Amino acid sequence: MSDVDAAVDLAAALGDIDTATPLVNSVTNNVTVNDVANITLHWGGLPVMSDDAREVDDMVATADGCLINMGTVDEDGEESMVVAGTAANEGDKPLVVDPVGVGATPTRTRVANRLLDELDVTILNGNHGEITALAGDDADVRGVESVGEYADIAETALSCARTHDTVVVASGETDIVASPEEAYEITAGHPLMAQIVGTGCMLGVTLATFAAGMENATPLDAALAGTVGFGLAGEKAAEEGEYNGPASYKTAFLDTVAGLEAAPDDPAGRIERVLSVT
Amino acid sequence: MSDVDAAVDLAAALGDIDTATPLVNSVTNNVTVNDVANITLHWGGLPVMSDDAREVDDMVATADGCLINMGTVDEDGEESMVVAGTAANEGDKPLVVDPVGVGATPTRTRVANRLLDELDVTILNGNHGEITALAGDDADVRGVESVGEYADIAETALSCARTHDTVVVASGETDIVASPEEAYEITAGHPLMAQIVGTGCMLGVTLATFAAGMENATPLDAALAGTVGFGLAGEKAAEEGEYNGPASYKTAFLDTVAGLEAAPDDPAGRIERVLSVT
Amino acid sequence: MSDVDAAVDLAAALGDIDTATPLVNSVTNNVTVNDVANITLHWGGLPVMSDDAREVDDMVATADGCLINMGTVDEDGEESMVVAGTAANEGDKPLVVDPVGVGATPTRTRVANRLLDELDVTILNGNHGEITALAGDDADVRGVESVGEYADIAETALSCARTHDTVVVASGETDIVASPEEAYEITAGHPLMAQIVGTGCMLGVTLATFAAGMENATPLDAALAGTVGFGLAGEKAAEEGEYNGPASYKTAFLDTVAGLEAAPDDPAGRIERVLSVT
Repeated sequence: MSDVDAAVDLAAALGDIDTATPLVNSVTNNVTVNDVANITLHWGGLPVMSDDAREVDDMVATADGCLINMGTVDEDGEESMVVAGTAANEGDKPLVVDPVGVGATPTRTRVANRLLDELDVTILNGNHGEITALAGDDADVRGVESVGEYADIAETALSCARTHDTVVVASGETDIVASPEEAYEITAGHPLMAQIVGTGCMLGVTLATFAAGMENATPLDAALAGTVGFGLAGEKAAEEGEYNGPASYKTAFLDTVAGLEAAPDDPAGRIERVLSVT
Repeated sequence: MSDVDAAVDLAAALGDIDTATPLVNSVTNNVTVNDVANITLHWGGLPVMSDDAREVDDMVATADGCLINMGTVDEDGEESMVVAGTAANEGDKPLVVDPVGVGATPTRTRVANRLLDELDVTILNGNHGEITALAGDDADVRGVESVGEYADIAETALSCARTHDTVVVASGETDIVASPEEAYEITAGHPLMAQIVGTGCMLGVTLATFAAGMENATPLDAALAGTVGFGLAGEKAAEEGEYNGPASYKTAFLDTVAGLEAAPDDPAGRIERVLSVT
Repeated sequence: MSDVDAAVDLAAALGDIDTATPLVNSVTNNVTVNDVANITLHWGGLPVMSDDAREVDDMVATADGCLINMGTVDEDGEESMVVAGTAANEGDKPLVVDPVGVGATPTRTRVANRLLDELDVTILNGNHGEITALAGDDADVRGVESVGEYADIAETALSCARTHDTVVVASGETDIVASPEEAYEITAGHPLMAQIVGTGCMLGVTLATFAAGMENATPLDAALAGTVGFGLAGEKAAEEGEYNGPASYKTAFLDTVAGLEAAPDDPAGRIERVLSVT
């Protein structure tokens, strides 16, 4: 189906972001917040990390996009996420939700479902397990054809996208991007990316930055470009970077993102449509 | 007394952790939380950093070990630490407590003593000053014989271990590991480790990961293996790593931990029993 | 006016800090807290990062200086900042305030003004926009003569210093240091410093460390020495460090700070007085 696969012009996307310099507010966890802020800057965006319910709506109102990473699910954190997401919706700003650890505790499952119920989510970003936990079983997915080794997670992601009427990025050994109508398999990335903490969080804000900065892009376009760009940067860092283990690899990865101007490789060949709803 | 010194099979310990991939939940401070998470992963564990009182008991219930680093002592933080520690005790999971800054303020002293009073602590990890602050003076330590330059801190650590009925790791220029019955001096590590923020915090979660992942290990076994492994990794990074100062040394240290498979040196020769209660 | 320009003996300042090893408590944001702690240590100070209202006054009472970085402006954070700053004032400790994002939201503007109203601020550190937001328009600045390309921001900084009766550091492409009587332009630094998150935060704690550790130094002396030392370290890292992008540059910068013993260049030539109130 390569003739109908999504065309991703990564160089154009990076150029758009560079021109727009989108302000992205991240409400995120304190474990990887520094990496999340830096990668926003390295992609060409401007990071703001307000997470106080008293002001985050004002900050999001001035921003071009918003990430909600469900790292902190205490009472204050939950309120901040809802306030931030509501402000993003009211201002029609792209909103990426990263439901970290959904399924791991009842609190996380409740909060993630609240976010998905109350907010209009542009892109939902999680690992295979998190997306599976949110897929539900009431999604009516008919007429799908499946291709490829990761058919199960592709189906799950598509089901999740239909259930929540959003675009889903399910990251793992192979990344899946799914709209309610179709699912794509992204073949990009490197095993070293799984050996550092924060890869998923950095992907989340990457998606928010692409969605906020790309011109005339649908959420699916932004999700595809962001996911493949992220993976290709990881590969390039692994192949060309100077590192001696995962910690120095993370530094090389961030450096690579900052220096990325064109796609290090033809991104179109990395994206294959594996499911479509007929 | 080298004939009766503890035998530490670091390679076996690392193999155990690799096999078990223990899930370790850290309730820790926001200064070094990224390093704490990454080193957990690099040792072969799986890091979770839940610190919300609403859910941390559920998370610890699914984990194999727990670290409580007393970084944040506000009301919420205090409650989270107690909830997490109680869940670890109820589930019979190894619990490491790192009483950061005990003695520095009355609040920290009160909270540290509360943790030690209310919780069953597997390993208590602090620097020389912190352990001294917690040693108390009512410990009845008789019949000890002392050997070595660091006899005073060894006695203090042993006293602290007896007072709180736990295993104590007192880190400093030389690290001491003490059970209520004996104290060991660990000769491993490198001065550069003191030139970065977070070494003590990373040692804390190292101990939790070893205690959670080693098979058939007593708390003393885990404390000895974790402490000597940590120090030897620091030495190896200093000797073989690429760095130009403390910041790049930290990266080299984390890389070294991630790549450590066998002991870079015979660990047994680094452990000397310096005190024993007769 | 080079004959009357400020004399900065950076080597002496670094020697003072090394001798005094000042304890600096930072109440700061969770985005860059690790960098803030490490650079304190690398300059020769001892970092403490207490930010709990229940104990921060006790901690500041034992410290030699205090940084308040307005990263977190929720209710608890606001209280902690006021408590910490009040303790610094009561103990006559140098207090640096970094009004992050003032002007961006009404909450931030209100909190920043509260800090400036209620506290006696030794050095106010912000970027050009933040200092402009705080300059007010009721400052009676007469008889100033202006020199140099950055005259506008120099005037603004001087106005801000007069309004709040403090020393102002306004960082940007060129850094301005202003007392209520005069303004200096600092020509030091490197464009790479703007490509990482946390440069401003690290400058803030640098100023606190210099103010706490320099002997017989006025706030203006400390602000000049800290600002020029920070910039020269950034230049040296750019010229001599090993890096492949902004992430590895940050590591090289921190390494350079840690290794700085004497000024890598004559700092006096980097400081030009551009305004003085006659």
